Amino acid sequence: MQLSDFGKKLTERSGILELMDDLGRPLKDGIKTYPLGGGNPARIEEVSLMYEKRLKEMIESKEILAVLSAYDAPQGRLSFIDDLACYFSSKYGWPLTRDNIAITNGSQISMFYLFNLFAGKFSSDFKTVLFPLVPEYVGYADQGIYKGMMRSVASKLEYYDDHTFKYILDKDAVRSYLKEHEEVGAICVSRPTNPSGNVLRDDEIDFLSSMAAEHDIPLFIDNAYGLPFPSIIFEDAKLMWNENIILSMSLSKIGLPSVRTGIIIARKEVVDAISNINAISSLASGSFGQALIAPLITSGELERISKDVVMPFYKKKSELCQNYIRTFFDGTEYFFHKSEGSIFIWLYLPSLRISTIEFYKILKDYGVVTVPGEYSFYGTDDKAYPHPHYDKCLRLNYSAEDEVVKEGIKIISQLYRKYSK
Amino acid sequence: MQLSDFGKKLTERSGILELMDDLGRPLKDGIKTYPLGGGNPARIEEVSLMYEKRLKEMIESKEILAVLSAYDAPQGRLSFIDDLACYFSSKYGWPLTRDNIAITNGSQISMFYLFNLFAGKFSSDFKTVLFPLVPEYVGYADQGIYKGMMRSVASKLEYYDDHTFKYILDKDAVRSYLKEHEEVGAICVSRPTNPSGNVLRDDEIDFLSSMAAEHDIPLFIDNAYGLPFPSIIFEDAKLMWNENIILSMSLSKIGLPSVRTGIIIARKEVVDAISNINAISSLASGSFGQALIAPLITSGELERISKDVVMPFYKKKSELCQNYIRTFFDGTEYFFHKSEGSIFIWLYLPSLRISTIEFYKILKDYGVVTVPGEYSFYGTDDKAYPHPHYDKCLRLNYSAEDEVVKEGIKIISQLYRKYSK
Repeated sequence: MQLSDFGKKLTERSGILELMDDLGRPLKDGIKTYPLGGGNPARIEEVSLMYEKRLKEMIESKEILAVLSAYDAPQGRLSFIDDLACYFSSKYGWPLTRDNIAITNGSQISMFYLFNLFAGKFSSDFKTVLFPLVPEYVGYADQGIYKGMMRSVASKLEYYDDHTFKYILDKDAVRSYLKEHEEVGAICVSRPTNPSGNVLRDDEIDFLSSMAAEHDIPLFIDNAYGLPFPSIIFEDAKLMWNENIILSMSLSKIGLPSVRTGIIIARKEVVDAISNINAISSLASGSFGQALIAPLITSGELERISKDVVMPFYKKKSELCQNYIRTFFDGTEYFFHKSEGSIFIWLYLPSLRISTIEFYKILKDYGVVTVPGEYSFYGTDDKAYPHPHYDKCLRLNYSAEDEVVKEGIKIISQLYRKYSK
Repeated sequence: MQLSDFGKKLTERSGILELMDDLGRPLKDGIKTYPLGGGNPARIEEVSLMYEKRLKEMIESKEILAVLSAYDAPQGRLSFIDDLACYFSSKYGWPLTRDNIAITNGSQISMFYLFNLFAGKFSSDFKTVLFPLVPEYVGYADQGIYKGMMRSVASKLEYYDDHTFKYILDKDAVRSYLKEHEEVGAICVSRPTNPSGNVLRDDEIDFLSSMAAEHDIPLFIDNAYGLPFPSIIFEDAKLMWNENIILSMSLSKIGLPSVRTGIIIARKEVVDAISNINAISSLASGSFGQALIAPLITSGELERISKDVVMPFYKKKSELCQNYIRTFFDGTEYFFHKSEGSIFIWLYLPSLRISTIEFYKILKDYGVVTVPGEYSFYGTDDKAYPHPHYDKCLRLNYSAEDEVVKEGIKIISQLYRKYSK
């Protein structure tokens, strides 16, 4: 079967495919599994009850039947967009109207649209997306429809004396990269960062925003784990938007991954472009998630539950996970990124004598599913990525049941000892 | 704002955008509207009740909470895929397994993937998609990421003496087009055809299938209105599949447009490619529609309701619509395509002294929303499309309330008289 260049580029065996495949497919029969891979959020009882109540209400009032049976506009469900514009304007003081928000079938396709709108082939040149701090989300790496679209700058590192570290934006390197590379068409970060759990500090975001403005390119901020929902963020951090920022949000991590609802907040021109591309490629976005969540946003219930239930839930789980690591890895050389947000702990295993891709396979044989770190280091032509963590990190989703996380980490620690230098 | 070539191509003001925008946006304030545009299916009481019952069951059993809170694999919900493979194998005798089915976020994006996988730029050449019978679905026209991907052959025509006509596949023209154009990478038809309500005859499909096999390219059949669900097809027609056919289906026209669930039945290589592109661009497809419909497919209820309720419902509405046309257009020169399937009547107004794009705008001022025909004639470089119907047809969605359809058609007939030569 012959495939087009587009087809070849987008069907190559990719990190994100492997990761998503792990989610949907069971491991070998008969083996007990510890699913610490993927990005599935936890089922939180109070969140489930909120949705259950809302669903009953939608059925009771017959609203659900109206929702299911009609397409929304390509921009999204206009009543929901109005609700969001009003909510974000009043909460953050941003000057938003209906013209500033578009809905997509999930934030993954939001980013696919954005990368390929602002980078790739232009009539007379070729533009790139700069990831100013890698490691970054594995799911971006292959989203360009052309090779060479994704470029990056490696993070700086700060180590602390409690086995933790933090990735720091290398401002000088980013500034000079942008100066030397006029072909950069957009800057992109996830915040909180998947996979590391890093939260870029406000001054780092300010810096990136000013760099973007200076070079007249947009700054994409993927806020899938951030404020004001799901609010899986454990640090003080300001949510920022301006006409130069394209903010991407999602309902996935507030317990609704399967409704595939992405929210883009941007200036009108961008929203128009997203609406048009959505009409052509997808007709319209799914209505169900939008209709389900709308009154929970306007009433403030979603925000309240995010702050009072979801955030503390994950914070506690993160702390438990860190304790398990400290317990089971005691005596080995190990570090993990400061857990500032997201549903992941990013474990750095410097003594590993094999790559984490190899280690990931071995772990799978023992039933422990993780995400190897290599896929999160992209955007350079160097085969051996010039980052000391390149093939020595594992992403662990800590949102599974405590016992599962505990046992999974125990097995990882045992195998780490076995495969240490 | 500078956009990439991909961005420019996919954000141009397109027919499908206009059409979808009409669906989601109200007309001017205070005007009574007659929505005969768009592709919204009807709300059929028995179908709604079936979904309502199923939803209650999903809530009762807490299944809904499990569905909402987890991603499926990029290929789709594997249990649903198994159900479909079993259902189609036993119903049609096709040798399908789990490897032959992929799920997408709606059949619109199924076609977007397929067109761009099999046509566009290849390492050393450029391939096209051939639409062997236009007029064809407006939503395909702009889906290529490169200009010039969509090529077409105009239909032949047969007129009958009851003001009807039928589009006929021009087999000779298709055969010689394929002979002269080695660059054709795929053939595509919708059956029943949107916009005309045509159903390609079995011999026409056989012919296209053999042409595809001869040229070693796939035949895409968009079966969104066809068998076995929603079964909006009023003629005897055989549903055909083989390793060379890529069959696209949808839950939209069986009353679930907003769940955005597309089904692709194809050989394994194609399903693998779709899974990969879906992972990269979208992570996973929405689960809700799949979970909702699965037991209704396996129990046979969806098929039964399609055959016993949905098909007769639309048949009756189509006949009513035809009667309204005969009544109100009496004394004018008018024709419409034989209503063989889909939810549209395709009206040909030869005496119109303006184009249907202009007529569509005038109709909108009177509250009647339709789809002008021009957008369905694409795939040629001739400005004036070499088809006698090019700018003289309107697509009317007859699934609105009877009174709405009746009044809408009345207004169209009055304005037709006013704007006739």
